[in-house]
Amino acid sequence: MLGTILYGPRDVRCEEVAEPKLLRPTDAIIRLSASCICGSDLWPYRGLNEVASPMAMGHEYCGVVEEVGSAVTTVRPGQFVVGSFCISDNTCPHCRFGFPSSCQQREFMTGAQAPLARVPLADGTLVATAELPPDDLIPSLLATSDVLGTGWYAAFAANVKPGSTVVVVGDGAVGLMGVLSAKQMGAERIIAMSRHKTRQDLAVEFGATDIISERGDKGVARIKELTKGIGADSVLECVGTQESMTQALNCARPGGSIGYVGVPHGVELDGAGLFFAQTSLLGGPAPVRRFLPHLIDLALQRKIEPGKVFDLKLPLAEVAEGYRAMDERRAIKTLLLT
Amino acid sequence: MLGTILYGPRDVRCEEVAEPKLLRPTDAIIRLSASCICGSDLWPYRGLNEVASPMAMGHEYCGVVEEVGSAVTTVRPGQFVVGSFCISDNTCPHCRFGFPSSCQQREFMTGAQAPLARVPLADGTLVATAELPPDDLIPSLLATSDVLGTGWYAAFAANVKPGSTVVVVGDGAVGLMGVLSAKQMGAERIIAMSRHKTRQDLAVEFGATDIISERGDKGVARIKELTKGIGADSVLECVGTQESMTQALNCARPGGSIGYVGVPHGVELDGAGLFFAQTSLLGGPAPVRRFLPHLIDLALQRKIEPGKVFDLKLPLAEVAEGYRAMDERRAIKTLLLT
Repeated sequence: MLGTILYGPRDVRCEEVAEPKLLRPTDAIIRLSASCICGSDLWPYRGLNEVASPMAMGHEYCGVVEEVGSAVTTVRPGQFVVGSFCISDNTCPHCRFGFPSSCQQREFMTGAQAPLARVPLADGTLVATAELPPDDLIPSLLATSDVLGTGWYAAFAANVKPGSTVVVVGDGAVGLMGVLSAKQMGAERIIAMSRHKTRQDLAVEFGATDIISERGDKGVARIKELTKGIGADSVLECVGTQESMTQALNCARPGGSIGYVGVPHGVELDGAGLFFAQTSLLGGPAPVRRFLPHLIDLALQRKIEPGKVFDLKLPLAEVAEGYRAMDERRAIKTLLLT
Repeated sequence: MLGTILYGPRDVRCEEVAEPKLLRPTDAIIRLSASCICGSDLWPYRGLNEVASPMAMGHEYCGVVEEVGSAVTTVRPGQFVVGSFCISDNTCPHCRFGFPSSCQQREFMTGAQAPLARVPLADGTLVATAELPPDDLIPSLLATSDVLGTGWYAAFAANVKPGSTVVVVGDGAVGLMGVLSAKQMGAERIIAMSRHKTRQDLAVEFGATDIISERGDKGVARIKELTKGIGADSVLECVGTQESMTQALNCARPGGSIGYVGVPHGVELDGAGLFFAQTSLLGGPAPVRRFLPHLIDLALQRKIEPGKVFDLKLPLAEVAEGYRAMDERRAIKTLLLT
């Protein structure tokens, strides 16, 4: 079959690879209904994370179960399933505490930019739907697997509540999903920081009430202006740089909360500054499995349409163009037809 | 009257000072029932915070109102009151959001190691009791003003819930109050990290179920042992050094929470480390005013006895010995008879 391999900076190839097989009795093999490229795939693609050996790319997935190992009891061949990018057993103390992304048996999903994928710990990781969903819902269901789950966690970690004033730093796919999530959680005012027309438009469609195109200190000053000098109740940091984190911290009101889901690259936090700003911080790899049943339900009921975040659809064979388009910010997020 | 002035490192003097006067219509003058020395007073005393000019010391207080300004409406002469070390109006957006310690009109209390003190913004800052309390409750009521309020906030910020497993880093007065607070909030297991017998004993009296005398990596290893490798749900960081913060972070389970109330001195946090540890952080100057009515009530009903934290009582004239005893760790906390 075709698969996606990253060989080094900007060298991603769609090539013939072996079909995945059950390796452990807890595995499942699924046939992907669609796959996609994640913003986090761009870190190694851009050479910002080292690529020591060729990497099988892809960790967002949904599809139909082909085969399950002998120990798998909760999903069966023919069922439609969605799983998280974090493989988890859903039974360990960390999973039960609500943090399956820190599961004691955690693995990170790989190899899902392909027609077939092996999912370890299938019972813990996969959530099956009652019926096969209609085709037009596939993009939205695929989005729940990571990008929406991560935006949702950002809003959860930032303590978004009905009536909240929310700032979203970062207009990538995760930031846009953060806007959608904050809206679902009842935020009254959602301020998206974005300089790109197409992203601004999508943010508004997802529920943003205000758009700020300024960044850094100027952006913070605009937030303060819009909030009568108070700052935001909740800030979603969806980038992962020192600049974006500083901006997020400076937008929050005292006692406000930052949910940060951009993987920090070179971010340092000053303890005393954080202390006197009195800002609550929670981040990390999103515990998507915890939110999946609810998010799948919202998508199936057509209450949300996170699939709109895919503004480029390509056949798997053209995956390299999908990476390029996202790298050059010509596309927000690329869906791959597997 | 006598007052306490810090002139420079280890040079604190009890000397004749002017009696405080109403300066603004929102002020009150109170006659202190007792005063005390705070762990945070030791930072400038030890020369770790600069003393640019002589400082009037003391910010923990309770007592009887002597006189109020023309704009004060909620307290009147003759009432017993407790106030926070943070002066706040209790009406601004930050106060209403629950963070009076970041009040838009915030001032820090000073000059309370004396028989009389001026309290600005008396309406917002002071909480009056229905009757004059009995003398034996004064130490516990005094404790609510800062040391208990701060320990309480640490437990609140660390998200302590009924059934929680809690670690308290720091066996100073605030850490001990953190133990008491966690107990009140229903924690099932409270692990106090302490190497000093008198503090260990008091921790147990306040509700600690386990004492760990190891520090650093060894201390963390013991916590992991006691929690079956999982880590603590909640960690109260009550010191403020890089070592204590690192220890706190390493004790928490994924998704666990750190409440940090030790004023950070030279503490740096690594964004990526914090992200993957998936630890929630909230700290800052404690919003004591928010908790005061509840804490005063608990003390008046004799449900808690935070006043036990005072293991040295001295006349105000001997305040310098009170500082020395705390600096040399001969005393946990010094009460001053004003």
